[in-house]
Amino acid sequence: MTLDEVFMKRAFDLSLAGAGSVSPNPLVGAVIVKDGKIISEGYHAVYGGDHAELDAIKKATVSLEGATLYCTLEPCCHTNKQTPPCAQRIVKEKFRRVVIANLDPNPHVNGGGVEILKNAGIEVESGILASLGEEINEAFFITQNKKRPYIHLKLAATLDGKISMPTGESQWITSPTSRQYVHELRRTHSAVLVGAETARLDDPTLTVRLPDFNGKQPWRLVLTESGNLPPTLKLFNDEYKDRTVVLTKTKISFLSDDQQIIFTNLADLMSKLLAKKITSLFVEGGPMVATLLLKEKLVDRLSYFINPSLLGVGPSAISDIGVKTLATRPRLTEVKTKQFESDIYFTGKILCSQD
Amino acid sequence: MTLDEVFMKRAFDLSLAGAGSVSPNPLVGAVIVKDGKIISEGYHAVYGGDHAELDAIKKATVSLEGATLYCTLEPCCHTNKQTPPCAQRIVKEKFRRVVIANLDPNPHVNGGGVEILKNAGIEVESGILASLGEEINEAFFITQNKKRPYIHLKLAATLDGKISMPTGESQWITSPTSRQYVHELRRTHSAVLVGAETARLDDPTLTVRLPDFNGKQPWRLVLTESGNLPPTLKLFNDEYKDRTVVLTKTKISFLSDDQQIIFTNLADLMSKLLAKKITSLFVEGGPMVATLLLKEKLVDRLSYFINPSLLGVGPSAISDIGVKTLATRPRLTEVKTKQFESDIYFTGKILCSQD
Repeated sequence: MTLDEVFMKRAFDLSLAGAGSVSPNPLVGAVIVKDGKIISEGYHAVYGGDHAELDAIKKATVSLEGATLYCTLEPCCHTNKQTPPCAQRIVKEKFRRVVIANLDPNPHVNGGGVEILKNAGIEVESGILASLGEEINEAFFITQNKKRPYIHLKLAATLDGKISMPTGESQWITSPTSRQYVHELRRTHSAVLVGAETARLDDPTLTVRLPDFNGKQPWRLVLTESGNLPPTLKLFNDEYKDRTVVLTKTKISFLSDDQQIIFTNLADLMSKLLAKKITSLFVEGGPMVATLLLKEKLVDRLSYFINPSLLGVGPSAISDIGVKTLATRPRLTEVKTKQFESDIYFTGKILCSQD
Repeated sequence: MTLDEVFMKRAFDLSLAGAGSVSPNPLVGAVIVKDGKIISEGYHAVYGGDHAELDAIKKATVSLEGATLYCTLEPCCHTNKQTPPCAQRIVKEKFRRVVIANLDPNPHVNGGGVEILKNAGIEVESGILASLGEEINEAFFITQNKKRPYIHLKLAATLDGKISMPTGESQWITSPTSRQYVHELRRTHSAVLVGAETARLDDPTLTVRLPDFNGKQPWRLVLTESGNLPPTLKLFNDEYKDRTVVLTKTKISFLSDDQQIIFTNLADLMSKLLAKKITSLFVEGGPMVATLLLKEKLVDRLSYFINPSLLGVGPSAISDIGVKTLATRPRLTEVKTKQFESDIYFTGKILCSQD
């Protein structure tokens, strides 16, 4: 590691403290170095709060003139938001050098922050540990680049890809610690999504149930074409019922306007979700929703829990996703695995062929 | 570890040198200890060769009177075989104590060796590291206890349990290193088995192709009910054609008697395989054979290669194996995993419910 990478790594480590509180913003950390020593540190702690570089500047107790700022994301330059632009402040503080990991993909920034700094005579270097930033803020970059929410699909099945008995019996295929980990995954997304069939059959609550969780519950979304959902579902009656939104093609009479998004097609749905600041979806089934999203190449990440057992019969995790040849099947890339009791958990980005 | 366990572990380590050459015998190692020091070591190196304890006795250069013998398997006492019984020899050498890991499940021995030793006044202890022995000689113990060949089923599929495209295209789902490892698995079994459908579709050679392999090829078995197999298959024409045997219910005219086993049912087949000294089967597919063996609870170990990709359509690794409820589905136990490139390999004993 170069010295620049060491300081940038520290800035990324700091950024993680904002996890779960800054969405839909990305995690950002900053470190200020003078004469080879860290003299201040900061991070973006909460949505609407100070940006990381501003936090570090405010916390500094000595003059920043001639110092180097390490910032995991390009400093902002736009004024159409809740906090003043950081690039101008950096210029004002007379930094000598700014080191950046990732440029901000937000079209209101994208290079504009760097330009302001360079025009003021500040030396700027970007791309340091950029891949680490892309990993930490995966959902943010996808949302910005694809102009739709980041979609993370979870599947859980036996070795032979079965999710329940033909009778529908599915509790439980995976181990208790696998199911516990699902709550960890839910908490890092702005919404949890299931299909109407899963809502009807399982009557789930889709909440984050973790001892240390005291944030806002993710939105609970149910996707339905027909609008056929019983008003008695827990999602419509429990203490978090104001966090439930039905995504439907047909207006549902027993729900208020706030409780439903009426959409014409998936592109329309995606833009309506973004308008509601829903930038990341954790999709928990069932097979129809999973198959639909995979077929439309809308899945960015797949996480798959496998229990080492066999069923032979019963519904499969997915059906026809439109694969034409072996070579063009969707694959996981940058795969990581974890073990939960006897279950194996795979997670990776989905790599779809272009044809 | 106790001192007894340390010496027994050494005996097991020695036993491994016989891997691939002693079948259908088990791997056995022996260590002789006098005054707290190892004075000789031995192992069963090749089928028909000296037993481990005899090997160690022969290699000793000092008197064995009063010494302790560590032997991973109970010394034999029967004379209906190629080597003289070991128990009598141990008595003759005036050992003071014999420590054994596993009793020999062979009905001609089973406790008989221990009895001879005890009757001669030798102190005998058994069960030391017994579970290690059961693991190392898994196939041997299963064959002895169940009176049929040990059956190890291999499956390879995508995350969603698919083994090929609907067109039959299946080359390749798993990675090259996974496929290489299959050759390692083949070499440790006395026979490789496929169904007629796999033989017809894939025309495989089923040989061990490894640079360091110079042993005899495992038997190549094809299971068919109808006897409908083309005489042009590689299995009937390549340089190892004398290692091919068809398991059929109907006599096949183009094959000699040596090239076929005609059976009436699976129990009959199993005893005919044992009669031919085929004590372990590595089953490589396809779905019909896998499903049949699982349904009949004839699978002892399942090894499953998963490639982290999706197909959605195409044949599944298995079909209806007779599971009635989630709780009674077959599970893997003592699961071990390995990674081969992006593939994950699971191997475990099959735990079937009793109902």
